[in-house]
Amino acid sequence: MRIKAVIAYDGTGYGGSQIQANAPTIQAELEQALARLTGVAIRIAASGRTDAGVHADGQVIAFDTEWAHTLVDLRRGMNALLPKQIAVFELQEVEPGFHPRYDATSRSYRYRIYRGAMRHPFYERYSIHVPQALDLEAMTCATRCLIGRHDYLAFGSPPQGRNSVREVIRAEWTYREPWLTFDVEANAFLYRMVRMFVGTLLRVGTGRVTPEQFKEILETRDRQRAGPAIAAKGLCLRSVTYTKV
Amino acid sequence: MRIKAVIAYDGTGYGGSQIQANAPTIQAELEQALARLTGVAIRIAASGRTDAGVHADGQVIAFDTEWAHTLVDLRRGMNALLPKQIAVFELQEVEPGFHPRYDATSRSYRYRIYRGAMRHPFYERYSIHVPQALDLEAMTCATRCLIGRHDYLAFGSPPQGRNSVREVIRAEWTYREPWLTFDVEANAFLYRMVRMFVGTLLRVGTGRVTPEQFKEILETRDRQRAGPAIAAKGLCLRSVTYTKV
Repeated sequence: MRIKAVIAYDGTGYGGSQIQANAPTIQAELEQALARLTGVAIRIAASGRTDAGVHADGQVIAFDTEWAHTLVDLRRGMNALLPKQIAVFELQEVEPGFHPRYDATSRSYRYRIYRGAMRHPFYERYSIHVPQALDLEAMTCATRCLIGRHDYLAFGSPPQGRNSVREVIRAEWTYREPWLTFDVEANAFLYRMVRMFVGTLLRVGTGRVTPEQFKEILETRDRQRAGPAIAAKGLCLRSVTYTKV
Repeated sequence: MRIKAVIAYDGTGYGGSQIQANAPTIQAELEQALARLTGVAIRIAASGRTDAGVHADGQVIAFDTEWAHTLVDLRRGMNALLPKQIAVFELQEVEPGFHPRYDATSRSYRYRIYRGAMRHPFYERYSIHVPQALDLEAMTCATRCLIGRHDYLAFGSPPQGRNSVREVIRAEWTYREPWLTFDVEANAFLYRMVRMFVGTLLRVGTGRVTPEQFKEILETRDRQRAGPAIAAKGLCLRSVTYTKV
């Protein structure tokens, strides 16, 4: 049977979500846990890869298994075997053809910025610290032009040979002292796209880029003019939506 | 001049707040940063020691220095040199005789329990996960007998040769889903006292100890009947109060 799972992970110290030779990955940890539980090698698929250091509390994966016990047992077993940095929240049986990446209709990410005067050790892992003055109105204004169907080449790279047109459904800043939060939802994202959005929008906040220039960067698709990608540690994949499941 | 500092630290991976030979400590990190900044060895004193793995976001320390620049500069320098797990929030010049331990009138600690159905990777460092049913009413009832001036020998060890009478000013549970929080303030604490309180009160919550038995444990000062100390990682020193400063 095919299983869909909603998982969470602390990406600190992991070389991203996708298996690679030279760093521990979320995928490798999950596949190891499943192999130990079921006795057979199981390959998992995810809704998309997350970069090294990026966190998730709503990543979706899927895999095939001949597990003979309940899904509650499977979840308990996985959570017992997985390291503390990874947890399985929900398991659900789905159609055999379900694919967490191709069937996903949108992904939502959150980026967190801590605005306290001093850096705080407790917030170190899941946010970046920006105590400087920021023009939130300018940032909000610039953010508006991101919404809709656009070619986002200025803000990230598509997979090899693919196009860079995506549809941003929602992009907004919320400030609840001392937290400044950027929430963005799109049908899909280019590599580093959210971190490039935030890096460039912080330049708008500090006055180095005007909202008009920000719009030009999007329109001219000029990566050179976009800000650098902001640190991975403030980023979290919050949810993936599906119509079918 | 004598400086009072309010500091925060993530105690994970530290062998406690106080210098010891075989583990990195908060005190050693602070003294190294001060030595590098000022060029002279500086010994710091703290309001009290915190055990290995215990966090703080309101620990108070003091030290003497001939620092010639502003306190804002000193704080900036310390925060630049200290590891990300330690931060200095406030610096203040105080009377030469000020001692953060002997002049303290009370200490406040918080213990955090995560009640979500599944463990969550993001909450791993600063709380423990207790999904089981708990009788909060019984726990609250038992907690009441802790308040006042008592001999708390059942719940901790005094420094060698000293007595174990302390005064608990406040002790209360707050539940705001999914967080169960224990706040306790006392003039001073025995070693492990908060963690022994919480460990034993969780036994009340699960019905293994009645509130009446809990009161007996306090009165008979019988450590054998008290619960084990709960994990350090959920504990945080929140503040230290002084009348003089």
